[in-house]
This record gives sequence, structure tokens and C-alpha cells, in this order.
Amino acid sequence: MTPDAMPSLAPLLAAIAQRIGAAHVLTEPADMAPFLHEERGLYQGRAPAVLRPGSTEEVAFVVEACARAGVPIVPQGGNTGLVGGQMPFGEVLVSLARLDRIRAVDPVDMTMTVEAGCILDNVHKAAEAAGCLFPLHIASQGSCRIGGNLASNAGGTAVLRYGNAKDLVLGLEVVLADGRVWNGMKRLRKNNAGYDLKPLFLGTEGTLGIITAAVLKLFPQPAQRTTAFLAVPDPASALALLKRLRGEAGDALTTFELMAAFGVETVLTHMPGTVRPLADRYDWYVLAELSAPTRAFDLGALMEEALGAAMEAGEVLDAVIAASEAQAANLWRLREDMSEAQKHEGGSIKHDVSVPVSRVPEFLERALPACLAALPGLRPCPFGHVGDGNIHFNLSQPVGMEKAAFIGLWERFNRIVHDIVTEMDGSIAAEHGIGILKREELAHYADPVALDLMHRLKAALDPAGLLNPGKVLSNGR
Amino acid sequence: MTPDAMPSLAPLLAAIAQRIGAAHVLTEPADMAPFLHEERGLYQGRAPAVLRPGSTEEVAFVVEACARAGVPIVPQGGNTGLVGGQMPFGEVLVSLARLDRIRAVDPVDMTMTVEAGCILDNVHKAAEAAGCLFPLHIASQGSCRIGGNLASNAGGTAVLRYGNAKDLVLGLEVVLADGRVWNGMKRLRKNNAGYDLKPLFLGTEGTLGIITAAVLKLFPQPAQRTTAFLAVPDPASALALLKRLRGEAGDALTTFELMAAFGVETVLTHMPGTVRPLADRYDWYVLAELSAPTRAFDLGALMEEALGAAMEAGEVLDAVIAASEAQAANLWRLREDMSEAQKHEGGSIKHDVSVPVSRVPEFLERALPACLAALPGLRPCPFGHVGDGNIHFNLSQPVGMEKAAFIGLWERFNRIVHDIVTEMDGSIAAEHGIGILKREELAHYADPVALDLMHRLKAALDPAGLLNPGKVLSNGR
Repeated sequence: MTPDAMPSLAPLLAAIAQRIGAAHVLTEPADMAPFLHEERGLYQGRAPAVLRPGSTEEVAFVVEACARAGVPIVPQGGNTGLVGGQMPFGEVLVSLARLDRIRAVDPVDMTMTVEAGCILDNVHKAAEAAGCLFPLHIASQGSCRIGGNLASNAGGTAVLRYGNAKDLVLGLEVVLADGRVWNGMKRLRKNNAGYDLKPLFLGTEGTLGIITAAVLKLFPQPAQRTTAFLAVPDPASALALLKRLRGEAGDALTTFELMAAFGVETVLTHMPGTVRPLADRYDWYVLAELSAPTRAFDLGALMEEALGAAMEAGEVLDAVIAASEAQAANLWRLREDMSEAQKHEGGSIKHDVSVPVSRVPEFLERALPACLAALPGLRPCPFGHVGDGNIHFNLSQPVGMEKAAFIGLWERFNRIVHDIVTEMDGSIAAEHGIGILKREELAHYADPVALDLMHRLKAALDPAGLLNPGKVLSNGR
Repeated sequence: MTPDAMPSLAPLLAAIAQRIGAAHVLTEPADMAPFLHEERGLYQGRAPAVLRPGSTEEVAFVVEACARAGVPIVPQGGNTGLVGGQMPFGEVLVSLARLDRIRAVDPVDMTMTVEAGCILDNVHKAAEAAGCLFPLHIASQGSCRIGGNLASNAGGTAVLRYGNAKDLVLGLEVVLADGRVWNGMKRLRKNNAGYDLKPLFLGTEGTLGIITAAVLKLFPQPAQRTTAFLAVPDPASALALLKRLRGEAGDALTTFELMAAFGVETVLTHMPGTVRPLADRYDWYVLAELSAPTRAFDLGALMEEALGAAMEAGEVLDAVIAASEAQAANLWRLREDMSEAQKHEGGSIKHDVSVPVSRVPEFLERALPACLAALPGLRPCPFGHVGDGNIHFNLSQPVGMEKAAFIGLWERFNRIVHDIVTEMDGSIAAEHGIGILKREELAHYADPVALDLMHRLKAALDPAGLLNPGKVLSNGR
């Protein structure tokens, strides 16, 4: 049934309150507001209630009770998603935030067992305390929660070396659509005992089950790190430099981010305390970092030598290598503050796309003029994980244009950018997911056979369509 | 319908012969024999016909024709599977061997596009020719085919660094149960555009679809490599050494294999040309290899220093570092020839199990005496990928026992070994899969919720149950 056709929820909510505590069943608008307001302001959620279960068993109780009553649910972690996947539009919201225990850290197995509501930064800290590294790093790490990271298969700045969120998972615990719990909390590096069920829930945005806990892979903590900020002539040179650094440093190359001048200048203009890293201004910049868990070789010397050769080859125009932790932190801010800084420049139409790594320059050569032709004065702000072929192709509004009018052009720019991406055999959703923002785009571009398979999975795991309905896939077919 | 209740296949086979060529529809027992004989002799296959389509389109035609006729199919690659997953028991066999083109190698994107029938060694060679590495290494690489490797999620000696087969895949092309083709041949490093469908077909042993092609990840070729063969006091010392080498070498540690004395002695006894690597005999050995795509640091010196410290710490009793490629090859043979050598010692009951890495010593301490108590004179031959927690827990028969009588004890040893593994939260199938050999074991040990999810996937993707029926899961529920 549609949310608006739901019968009175009073008996259901009373039963749930009895189990999880009345204090954790929110129905007052003021109490619910933080869960229904989405940071970018693209969506205003609506929910008859926000439920805050405190354990896997309580989540299972809530889901089963809602399933029996035919009431649809939207699960939510830290409410930081960028595509509206965490927003209810009339459904009951189930917050995982109270499931925030770190159950175990094992530095011999290099694993950590966490509940879905753990804030990502707390996962980092617990790993560090055990002398390990959990390498998922994204801008929202101070408030996003690991369950949401896994459900959306988050990416970030360390994917180049460590993979996406889904690559960092050994085990999962999931509440299924009917309230049963699947306990897949193995901490095994190898397991071919039947179908691997984890991928059903990693990156499927809570539409096939609700992740309540996970066993994460840990890595050795870096013993040394060297960070460089470089000016490059163009994206093709950045790719040549990527190849060079990988050849020299192998897996020690852990970050390689490309940025256009507009984004860097925007950070320098709006973000207090940031410092211009190079004397001159250039069109394109790269943030590169080497790190390794050993001191058996000198990464600083390796970086200097590689950059010297790259400058001789014309791949690099100017470079600075951080001489201190504080300098490194400043260089990182030029990349990490980019989304925040962009807010000061008015509306931003964002695309999170990927193409084969080798085709990033071609993508930019085609997409930039196409967008500028569509709206003179547009200020493109492309940046991102060039080593993954993933560009955040953001477009800041022309100076003086009305923000709402600009945001109204979103679909038009979608068509321009996503047509090019699709022609280049790329993806319209590299690391932010589909949610509601890109659902129609997915339906527009996806192979019909692939869409049919996705709908079959949805029907097999959530036949009543009660889990995060209308996200990723349209209701019905 | 069951294979034995199938109507005359003559019209179906005639239609298929018209499409793929009569020469590729085998029905004579002598022609079919190589496809129906399984190397370990555990199973003798039966099939009314062996079909050898030559392209994805022909596979799709065959599958659709069989689906319309309600005729079940078993797909087969190189016929090297260790659990009988590739064996028909009355079904039509579809060999993928003729789909053996390497469609493309891209050293910039570090990808290779291959058809399912490519022999793994040919994939290695094509990668090498482009200056790259495809790091899946298993004993059968001279005859196994990549489609089978992916369908069974093969493991091998490089998983420690590079992951299992499924971790090496960016894109897939699959013929579905109804003959439709899913083209998921993206060569993207990041793609969150809807549900990831690849895991449905990786490691599911052809029960949900038939892989016809794949985009594989490549890696930089090692520029240096150093191989050591070590005697260690016990498995716990091996784990300490693993931790030490990882701490010193980071990702340059690409192989770490544990072997019991019996296996090494068996190789030295039966395999011509092998050379005893250390002066004395010990109970446990380790083969360790460091490799890196750069010469920026000296792996040989790093290995020497780490092993020196390990000997001082009592983790290593004796060691040899290969001084030449030929010596390294000999050290590798002591590990790689182990399964082959074991054939000379009569029957072998094999278990392919995993436990959390930290618990490998405990597993061996429990499983070895339990098996010896069950059959005095038994000669255990445990070896394997200790860094992945994966032990090939093989048991050679007592000297003089009749082979058939020994093999008849397989289920009894299964119960002993798999009970211990399950109590230790391990897996009864680490890298060889389930097939038919372990199907009842899976049904016995698997969580009922997990089994239910697997059956739901099977019903969603192959509702008529025509793809590799009875493998992994029982027919019906």
C-alpha cells in the first residue's frame, strides 16, 4: 500500500513503544525534524514516526511488526546520503543510530566487528587504538554511520588502494524484510560455502534488507606518509603521472586526486585558514599521497625522485611536498573542503560519474564545452578520484543567476553529462548511489535486462515492497 | 523434469546442430568421454549430448532452445573443478571451451577482456605480453578456463595480496537461464548504478547463469621478487612470522604458504627433479615470497633482515632464500606439486576449509589428533594459504589400507573436520566451492536463513531449475 493509504498506526506504534521504549518512538514534528531534513536541502522528508531501536533484536521486532501491518520502512544511518536514499516520503523511519557499539577489534585477524550505527570516525579511532587502519575516508566521516556507508557502498579518497566500502567487509548481519535476522558475521578471508549473500545488502541502499552489524577488514597502520600538491598541464598529464607514481611506488600510492582551478580557488577564497600551496596559479592540480606500513624504504625520497622525473617529462609544472603534518593537513583541506566551499558560490548541480580511467581526459574534453555551451557563465568544478575514473562533475551557477532557476536546469544537465558518460561506457552513479535523485536516470539508461534482474532480486527478497520503497528502483516495474 | 524423464532430444539437437554446426554436437560416447571423466575419479558423468557453441550468441541460442524444451544444462570450462560442479548426471553438457578469444588488453586501464573459455595460462601470457600481471594462480592453470575460475571463485597462492577470482573482475557477460544475455562488460573501477549483479554469477557455479566473458583487473608486473623456504617450529610461529613480514614488507608480501612435513617429503620422494631445500628435516615449513612492481627498494635485503630477526625470535628454525630463478622454481614446486605427489600415496580425503587467520593453529591442534584417533596410521597432509586462514586439510590413507575402504570413510572424516570448523566459525568450503561433493554438507551446516535466501535467488533467476541443477543447492527446498 502507499504510505498515504496507511491505516492508523497507533496500535503498531504502541506495540513497538512497549518493546523499544516510548522515548524511542518519535512522532512530534520537532523531534523528528533532524531525521527528515536533508543537508543539501534537495528533499524534505515526511514520516508518521521515527523509530530508534537499540539492538539487532529490536530492529528485527520493529521490521517484523511493520511487515505484519503492511507498513513500509525507510532505514537511516547518519542522514548524510547525497541521493536521498535515507529520506522517507510518508514511510516510517527506522534510525540505526543507537546501534553504535564496537563489538570487537582483533589486530591479529585484522578485523573489527561493529554495529551499523557507529560513526565512521569512531571506527577509525577504534582501529587506530589497536594499531590498525580502517581505510574508508569520506568527507562526512564525522557524522555518517558505517551501516549507511555499507548500504551505499561509499567510496572516497582511498579507494585507489583499498577499494570501496563493499571491499572492506568480511561479514554482515542483516534484518530481512520479514524481520528474520541473517547472521553472516563470519570473519573469514575466504568462504565459498554457497552463494555469497553479502553483496545483496552492500550498495543496495536498504532496499533488500537492513544492515545491523558488520565485520570489517583492517589494514596495517601507515608507518610513513608523504603528501604532495602538484600543478599539472591537463588531465592527460595527470594520468601519465598516475602511471609513473604507480610504477615507482606500487601499492604505496594511496591517494591521487585531480582538481580544476575553480575548486581550489573557491576553497582558498571561502575556507578560513587555508593557504595557497604554490606561488603561481594553474588550471589543474593533483593531490598525491604515498603511505606504507613499513619504514624499510624512504617514501619521501621516492616521491622527490618521481616528481623530479615527472617535471622533466612535462607532466608536472610545479610541486610542493609537505614538510610537516600541518602542511600535509593544509594540502588535504584544498581537496576535502571543496564541496563545503562550493556552497558559497550559489547553486551547484552535481554529477557523480565514472568512465574507464584512460578516458577521463576525453570525458572532460567533451563534457566541459557541452555544459558551457548550454549555459554561458557556468562555472564547472570537476574534481575527484581520477585513479578510479570517478569524477565529481559539479557545476556552480553563473554569478548573479537565481539559485532556484539554476537548480531547475538539473535534468537538462543530467541529460548532457549522462549521455556523454553512457556513450563512453561509464556509470551515472560512481560512488554516491541512486537513491531517489537518480532513480529515473537509472531507469532511463540501464540495460533492460539488468533492470529486470534488479527487480527480480527486489521481488525475491522484499516481495511486499516494504523496505525503502521507491529507492533505486521504481515501485512496480 | 528430471534428466531421465526427458523426451527425445533429437529435434532439439538437430536445431542446435543447424545453428552451431553438427561437428559441435557430440553424442558418441568416445567423443563425449573427455568431458564426462573427472580427473580425481570421484564422479563419472552422463550426458545425452555435449554441445560446443562458439560464441556468446550461440551459447544464448543453445540455452534458450534447451529452456523452451525444458532440458536441463550443465556448463563446463576446463573440467578441472574439485567438487563435481562441472559434471552432468543426465543433463546436456554445454562446453565453453570454444569461447577462447582474448578480446582486448588495455595496459593503461589495466584491464583485459576475455571470453569464458580462455585457459588461465593464456590469460597470464596475454597480460605479461602487455607488461601486466593477472594474479590468479592455481595448480590447474594449464588447463582450467577463466569462466570456470570465475564461476567457482577460485583462490590460489596470491589471494593474500590480490584477492580471490571474484575480486579480480570488473565486468561480466552472462547468458541467463532463459537465454537472454546480460551485458555487464563495464571496465569501471567504481559503479554504484543500481544493484551490483556480478556477484550473482561469481562463485555460484553456473547455477544462476552462464558466464561467457569478463573484464578482468590487471596489476603492474613485479620488477623484483624474492622467494624463501623456511622451517618453522609450529603453525603459531608461522602466524607470528606472517605478522612480521607484513609489518616489514606491507603489500610486497604476496605469498605465504604453510606445509606439514609429510607433504614436503612426499613431493621430494615422488616428483622427479625436486631438491631438498634445507639440510635438516622439520615438522613445518613456510614458502614466503615478496614481490613489487618497483625497484625503488631492495626486497632481497628486506627479506634477509626480516628472517634474521625472525630466527632470533625463534619463529624460524632454518631458512633458504632463492639465489636464482631456478632455485625459486624448485622451492615453488615443493608447494605446487603437493596434490600431484599425494596421488602416489594412495587415497586422499580432502577438506578445503577456512577459519579466522588467528585460529589456524588451534584448528590444526584440534583436527589433527581427532582424525588420528579416528583412524590410526592416517597420514595427515595439511597445507595451504595460512594468511587467508585457508587450510587444505588432506588426509592420506594408512599404508597398506585398501583405497576404496579408505575413501568410504570420507563422510565420517567430513563430520569430524567440519564439526570443528563450524564450532570455530569457519567455512567448510574455502575456495573449491560446493558442487555436488559438499552439497549435503552445506545443507547440514548452513544457517537456515542463509539457505532460504540462496533458494530464493535460485528461484528468482532460474525458476525452472534448468541451470546446473542439484549443484550447490538441492533441487526443491
